[in-house]
Amino acid sequence: MASSQEEITLLGNTLSPYVCMVEIALKLKGVEYKYVEVNLPNKTDLLLKYNPVHKKIPVFVHNGKPIAESLVIVEYIDETWKQNPILPSHPYQRALAHFWSKFIGDKVVDTILKAVFTVDEKESEKNTEETLEALQFLENETKDKFFGGEEVGLVDIAGVFIAFWFPILEEVVGLELLTSHKFPKLYKWSQDLLNHPTVKESLPARDIVSSYFKARYESLSASK
Amino acid sequence: MASSQEEITLLGNTLSPYVCMVEIALKLKGVEYKYVEVNLPNKTDLLLKYNPVHKKIPVFVHNGKPIAESLVIVEYIDETWKQNPILPSHPYQRALAHFWSKFIGDKVVDTILKAVFTVDEKESEKNTEETLEALQFLENETKDKFFGGEEVGLVDIAGVFIAFWFPILEEVVGLELLTSHKFPKLYKWSQDLLNHPTVKESLPARDIVSSYFKARYESLSASK
Repeated sequence: MASSQEEITLLGNTLSPYVCMVEIALKLKGVEYKYVEVNLPNKTDLLLKYNPVHKKIPVFVHNGKPIAESLVIVEYIDETWKQNPILPSHPYQRALAHFWSKFIGDKVVDTILKAVFTVDEKESEKNTEETLEALQFLENETKDKFFGGEEVGLVDIAGVFIAFWFPILEEVVGLELLTSHKFPKLYKWSQDLLNHPTVKESLPARDIVSSYFKARYESLSASK
Repeated sequence: MASSQEEITLLGNTLSPYVCMVEIALKLKGVEYKYVEVNLPNKTDLLLKYNPVHKKIPVFVHNGKPIAESLVIVEYIDETWKQNPILPSHPYQRALAHFWSKFIGDKVVDTILKAVFTVDEKESEKNTEETLEALQFLENETKDKFFGGEEVGLVDIAGVFIAFWFPILEEVVGLELLTSHKFPKLYKWSQDLLNHPTVKESLPARDIVSSYFKARYESLSASK
């Protein structure tokens, strides 16, 4: 638990799945923290001070020491506060958790965003196919209630984008990829994750995310 | 140390900096392993069996269990064989090592390759500038002999591309980015890394890498 002398601050933005990942980790650990909303793209001085390299949220600041990159932060949180482990203890299981959490970022999040937010149709088709392929790999990996077993682990945390942001994005642009028909196990996992109390209280309001995607998609369509 | 009953195999390719990273880690640990050369792009059955997701080398197979992604493998090796630690033990130092090793892959390796292997001049210029910016961040982080302190650590291992592959690529395409004039500390670090006995014996022959880059660059130039 955080002692009263500790300073724990999260620089974030309501819309960001990467910030949400860090919030889930902190809440799973029962760590209290100060949340500072950073309005992008007007980068605040705080962000430039603590993350001069990427100038991106989330930034986690623990007793004045900043850490950037969501997965790096989540792992730091797991190593600093030992209760309710987020990563498995066995090296092989840890390696799998590292692999699949990176996979979700590279092959689902980045890929679906590329598929949707482009004016190049071929590029869009290629990335939509790659997203489907990635979802199939995850479907094949869905064995227990969560990727972390009975409890939410690193891969589940990385997967919050798939459970929450992905369906909103699909709705906005009229795609149907992550359906219970195509990916029954992954779909069920996404529902279980959304219903997990800690995850539930960490999610932003659905309509804010939806409005954001809508505005971004419409401004792109206007430029087509 | 690996016991005689252990089966330790690395699927690799001579040209790959990512495979070299894993070899450095194994040699730092004094772990004996069987090396299997995979001729890309003719993917062998072994690669398809052990890394069906990315179908890429390196793949590390420990007692039949496969692991992919170079940084994930290096961390697994560090956690499995405890001698000569590659990652620091303190969570904050570990987080920094995670951050900078990922940074090198995303912002130097991927970026310089995009700068060089494209027919789009604007894209090339943009990525060259981003590479320079990334090298400057690394220059500012170069404090001790190695990023790992007096010993080679995770960031140094991730950085082997910068020390060895990067200058060869510069020579082939006629760039001068990583010079002792522009980046004195990083340049010195790169020389120290190349002279480290374990790193030295893990590197491929310079002319093989040079021929590969030359062929790739010429085939691109021909398509301009």
